[in-house]
Amino acid sequence: MTPLHIAGIPGSLRRNSFSLGLLKAATELAPSGVEIEILDISNFPVFNQDEDARPPAPVAAFKEKVRAADAVLFSINEHNYSLSAAEKNAIDWASRPYGTSAWERKPAGIMSVSTGTMGGVRAQLDLRHAMVFLNMFPINRPEVIVPFAASKFDAEGRLTDATTRKFVADHLAELVRHTRVLTRAP
Amino acid sequence: MTPLHIAGIPGSLRRNSFSLGLLKAATELAPSGVEIEILDISNFPVFNQDEDARPPAPVAAFKEKVRAADAVLFSINEHNYSLSAAEKNAIDWASRPYGTSAWERKPAGIMSVSTGTMGGVRAQLDLRHAMVFLNMFPINRPEVIVPFAASKFDAEGRLTDATTRKFVADHLAELVRHTRVLTRAP
Amino acid sequence: MTPLHIAGIPGSLRRNSFSLGLLKAATELAPSGVEIEILDISNFPVFNQDEDARPPAPVAAFKEKVRAADAVLFSINEHNYSLSAAEKNAIDWASRPYGTSAWERKPAGIMSVSTGTMGGVRAQLDLRHAMVFLNMFPINRPEVIVPFAASKFDAEGRLTDATTRKFVADHLAELVRHTRVLTRAP
Amino acid sequence: MTPLHIAGIPGSLRRNSFSLGLLKAATELAPSGVEIEILDISNFPVFNQDEDARPPAPVAAFKEKVRAADAVLFSINEHNYSLSAAEKNAIDWASRPYGTSAWERKPAGIMSVSTGTMGGVRAQLDLRHAMVFLNMFPINRPEVIVPFAASKFDAEGRLTDATTRKFVADHLAELVRHTRVLTRAP
Repeated sequence: MTPLHIAGIPGSLRRNSFSLGLLKAATELAPSGVEIEILDISNFPVFNQDEDARPPAPVAAFKEKVRAADAVLFSINEHNYSLSAAEKNAIDWASRPYGTSAWERKPAGIMSVSTGTMGGVRAQLDLRHAMVFLNMFPINRPEVIVPFAASKFDAEGRLTDATTRKFVADHLAELVRHTRVLTRAP
Repeated sequence: MTPLHIAGIPGSLRRNSFSLGLLKAATELAPSGVEIEILDISNFPVFNQDEDARPPAPVAAFKEKVRAADAVLFSINEHNYSLSAAEKNAIDWASRPYGTSAWERKPAGIMSVSTGTMGGVRAQLDLRHAMVFLNMFPINRPEVIVPFAASKFDAEGRLTDATTRKFVADHLAELVRHTRVLTRAP
Repeated sequence: MTPLHIAGIPGSLRRNSFSLGLLKAATELAPSGVEIEILDISNFPVFNQDEDARPPAPVAAFKEKVRAADAVLFSINEHNYSLSAAEKNAIDWASRPYGTSAWERKPAGIMSVSTGTMGGVRAQLDLRHAMVFLNMFPINRPEVIVPFAASKFDAEGRLTDATTRKFVADHLAELVRHTRVLTRAP
Repeated sequence: MTPLHIAGIPGSLRRNSFSLGLLKAATELAPSGVEIEILDISNFPVFNQDEDARPPAPVAAFKEKVRAADAVLFSINEHNYSLSAAEKNAIDWASRPYGTSAWERKPAGIMSVSTGTMGGVRAQLDLRHAMVFLNMFPINRPEVIVPFAASKFDAEGRLTDATTRKFVADHLAELVRHTRVLTRAP
């Protein structure tokens, strides 16, 4: 089978954030022939439409990597019951200027994580709204919604919870299946 | 009656954005005794939770102005069917660190604007989700949802459409009524 | 203080549903001077706008009880990540015909419950969307989101979990405070 | 190419509703080899989980037709900023009992219509939330959002607006393409 290249999008600028830890676990759990590259969103200014035709170099590099990927995998956290500003900012930059969006028709996976009880489920709904406009095709199941993160990652931010690792692996398997269906030659 | 001070929160970093024009119209249409101050969100870095205890000066100034206000008035636009990164970033900064949110129990108004047909209505829903966690008390009616902005503002970004100006004035009247009810002494 | 009368709206037609159990707990936990009456939504046809000017007797009785209440307390469950048909049906019937809605300006509380991990949180967002159009004023905090219901109710459907009972009592206290603020004479 | 059979799901119980008119237009505009059958949801009781293993005959017939279809096309209207009770009721019935859902993995189109300015856009978001749990695969574009319905249908409820008919035809073309991609043999 053709190798697949998946762009992993972190949801936070924190060093060693749980959302980054989840993404690192995904790179370890990717099936053979599937590579997940974690992209860098840490040096972006806040999106300003007046500047969208001249994006700074880190934004331009991010956008090209998204565009080149066969699929994307978001690992998000939730701020104030919606997407973090860092995540929304990366999404908005790579969608502009109008007509040049890098997200167009990408198959997508979504994982979310929180220290509390709800695992970022509300931010997942938010992200799905954006994906309608972005014309992305997310998978539905198994959902990766990780509450109580502090008990599931070790001190270095590595995902140690076996049940959650299984969910991540199954989510990846479905994303790979879905990507192959959406992109195979007719 | 006691004067009221309302913090106007713009939704975009564009110079002369329609959301800023809507906010300027609100300052003109405020009832006697009510002052709307448009706050500056243009020099914020992207929110990083590692830095939230040491916010940069423009963020700290913004947060104090929100805290001091009797109510807030959001004027938002919609990027990719949800809140703009600039708006979400301002919200997240002023909500952190945990326990110090400036939004707590604020009465709030919401106006949205777009160049297309839907007037930013999806971003309004998004903002209302955040307001639940932020423990804010938004009004419901009349909604200010302004589609087809290009035909309602002049070349200098001034809101000229009489119907829309009436909606803004009525929205303000309800926000003032609501704020007086929520904050009057028992 | 004036006594308050709160209409309790169940979210399901099941006999002994968890959402009904949550509502029964609320009736027991209501502060002195506050009465919660659980309304009956079990004999409504599916809403048909062609018939909304001639609602069947159980619908008309429900609508009058909602209208007479000082506040409402929803106890909802989630079907397919949104409001149950039974709940939405009760809401739609009591909102029609246009101009006669019984929900207008009611202060409101929201509790949700599920057998799974998420406690109905997505249905809460759904209900809040409806409340914007209905011009209702929900409280925000403390949220009552009850996951893993099977471990928190006894075989007769009585809420036995002490932590959850405390959340219900605190939610009621805030609803009562909010209702007195919104409805007291100027 | 193999013929496709699409189940058309109306969103209202009204006689000659605009959502039914939109669905009838879709039947006329379906490409060659594609048949759209409008299903009947008019004689369902309100969903009660106590009865879901013994659905009434009209519900059972509806569920079998959904299951047999290659794709589904929802034509919805919006009540109180969310799905109509009639629509939600049909969705919930055909999703139950657990493990027997007829919606599983169906490709889907969504059209919405309103007499006002927003065209039912909020109900579309609602429906997409349900589709996540139902594991459905909706298309994104072109969106069919029809505001100001009274000016776009004739007295018999036939869609006469040429621009809207073009959107419906393009939506169907994308649904057919998407369905063929998702269901073709590997």
